[in-house]
Amino acid sequence: MPLFKPISENEATEKVKEVFEEIKSARKITEVPNFWKYLANNPETLERTWNSLKQVMKAGALDPVTKELIYVAVSMTNSCEYCTKSHTAAAKKKGATEDMIKEMIDVMGIANQNNKLVEAYGVEVDEIYK
Amino acid sequence: MPLFKPISENEATEKVKEVFEEIKSARKITEVPNFWKYLANNPETLERTWNSLKQVMKAGALDPVTKELIYVAVSMTNSCEYCTKSHTAAAKKKGATEDMIKEMIDVMGIANQNNKLVEAYGVEVDEIYK
Amino acid sequence: MPLFKPISENEATEKVKEVFEEIKSARKITEVPNFWKYLANNPETLERTWNSLKQVMKAGALDPVTKELIYVAVSMTNSCEYCTKSHTAAAKKKGATEDMIKEMIDVMGIANQNNKLVEAYGVEVDEIYK
Amino acid sequence: MPLFKPISENEATEKVKEVFEEIKSARKITEVPNFWKYLANNPETLERTWNSLKQVMKAGALDPVTKELIYVAVSMTNSCEYCTKSHTAAAKKKGATEDMIKEMIDVMGIANQNNKLVEAYGVEVDEIYK
Amino acid sequence: MPLFKPISENEATEKVKEVFEEIKSARKITEVPNFWKYLANNPETLERTWNSLKQVMKAGALDPVTKELIYVAVSMTNSCEYCTKSHTAAAKKKGATEDMIKEMIDVMGIANQNNKLVEAYGVEVDEIYK
Amino acid sequence: MPLFKPISENEATEKVKEVFEEIKSARKITEVPNFWKYLANNPETLERTWNSLKQVMKAGALDPVTKELIYVAVSMTNSCEYCTKSHTAAAKKKGATEDMIKEMIDVMGIANQNNKLVEAYGVEVDEIYK
Repeated sequence: MPLFKPISENEATEKVKEVFEEIKSARKITEVPNFWKYLANNPETLERTWNSLKQVMKAGALDPVTKELIYVAVSMTNSCEYCTKSHTAAAKKKGATEDMIKEMIDVMGIANQNNKLVEAYGVEVDEIYK
Repeated sequence: MPLFKPISENEATEKVKEVFEEIKSARKITEVPNFWKYLANNPETLERTWNSLKQVMKAGALDPVTKELIYVAVSMTNSCEYCTKSHTAAAKKKGATEDMIKEMIDVMGIANQNNKLVEAYGVEVDEIYK
Repeated sequence: MPLFKPISENEATEKVKEVFEEIKSARKITEVPNFWKYLANNPETLERTWNSLKQVMKAGALDPVTKELIYVAVSMTNSCEYCTKSHTAAAKKKGATEDMIKEMIDVMGIANQNNKLVEAYGVEVDEIYK
Repeated sequence: MPLFKPISENEATEKVKEVFEEIKSARKITEVPNFWKYLANNPETLERTWNSLKQVMKAGALDPVTKELIYVAVSMTNSCEYCTKSHTAAAKKKGATEDMIKEMIDVMGIANQNNKLVEAYGVEVDEIYK
Repeated sequence: MPLFKPISENEATEKVKEVFEEIKSARKITEVPNFWKYLANNPETLERTWNSLKQVMKAGALDPVTKELIYVAVSMTNSCEYCTKSHTAAAKKKGATEDMIKEMIDVMGIANQNNKLVEAYGVEVDEIYK
Repeated sequence: MPLFKPISENEATEKVKEVFEEIKSARKITEVPNFWKYLANNPETLERTWNSLKQVMKAGALDPVTKELIYVAVSMTNSCEYCTKSHTAAAKKKGATEDMIKEMIDVMGIANQNNKLVEAYGVEVDEIYK
């Protein structure tokens, strides 16, 4: 028996319901994704996480598509299947093309390799980068 | 005594020297960075890594600045100080502003948190993302 | 065809059977969990791992519930679903409440974020922490 | 030249200064630690991170010492030296003994080993944990 | 709906087909594994990855079995189930015995533990290793 | 002030001294490496870790050089500088050549890249590997 079950929209308490409504409206979706339904087990965590994500992912010096691609690259590096799938979908919805996603994957892949080659050879930081 | 030492430009064999020249010319720098000097201990690895990186990081569906930012976000996730510093410098040289870098850091940070919250609650992939 | 299959209790050799009995008795369970059945492919590894775990997880300066919560936080950070589920169950059995588990998840989540923000900004260790 | 430098207390803008004061008062310290001085490059990030940390680390179902120990175990797993050192200091200040810290390290160490043994043998989740 | 689907052999373009044929011939298999079918979504990535892998995994100072075992140990450390399963199969095909695989798992497991104990205690590099 | 300091040989208690002597004799060295001096803060951990390592790293189906190379590949993947340096030294002492080490690094590097490409494309395990 799993410890936590997703909280459905009609089980939700007032505070949770409010966040759920905001998520659906901001994302233009009709069903709250599982991530938020699970976090709803801890309403304080749900609210804090949603508010932080909203603040971080909004358009700024970087456009929302670039932000989603960065988010996905990190999620792939951490092997988080849910995050990879849900944020790849978000990236596409915001305008990312298949070619953009494929190139992000290439960059993510080679960075993972070179990060470890640097450790392997014990490369010191060059003066110009200090 | 370290196992590998960086190969300086005047110690370099013909094949290594060629790659070194290409790196300096492509990057518009006068000194080969330490990463490549260490890889030069294995000329085949040096050549393969440089050719792969060149292919992956070139302008395509994504512009070079976006690619550098993705590279840095992965390097921060993997705690690679050298990669973080050298590719942040590259991103700036290609046009990334401080604000772009700060926003990339925010996205990278929250992705690392949410990736683990997904694992913690054992969130199942929603039907729409499958 | 998987390389290794779980070793069931009636296939077990004498040495493995002894460890299996000890596990069931110490944990007050009637069925050996899969982790141990797989390790039984290598009896020496089974015995060493069980003896180490027993020594490390016993009550000491930290109570067994706290130890289980620390174990789960690490397992979530490493995205190990089996370890997360089995040790969350163990934590509950030893007395952890749902609220304790939720708070552990929050701490684990924010630590993962802040660990990476530290890398991102290249924060130096303060004198007082050295 | 590093991209970001720590923001000292007298360089701080009004908003940053307020957070700095709150940190010093809450932590009963006279000097703002480097982590916060670096985050101050992005006042919004500084404020969000401090508010989140304050909310998460406060006494609740788990006492503050246990929360610090969990935080440190995650930081060790992620190889974050700064986080390990600063939160071990915080744990001690809140009452953690050396023996508690040593036992936490043992649990953290063996969890990291067993997490990977689970992956190695491809252990399936037992019915009772589902 | 997944973003990428595996490219089957009869959907493959000329360039992809060539790499597919080379993989089947080099590996002495009659069906292209899924990894390559997915990479075929990006023919350039398919070709670069196959050429690099071929160069790296060929017999040299290390025999092919040892190389496969190292590859698997890294894949287990990164919790990559696909890589663990496919390269364990490759290792066996090239001559690895069950005992060799079990011993590799033991080394991989204890390295993961000791790596973190080193971080936990903040062990400085001994003079003789510098 | 660091929480733990290395325990020197003349500060060591009887039990610690015994393990120290065994390490020096088994490794044919005259000075105990820092890793063990730090673990000596917790004599039980010192003894358990040394006994486990001795059991795991001894010649068996795999020779000691191969075991050291696997250990180093995992340590590089986990970015553990101390472990990388000390076990590369051990590998060399046991007979590993520079070329063997370079090839191990290449395998380790490409495994880290391909592990993430598998996650990125969400590659399903082929029937033949199940």
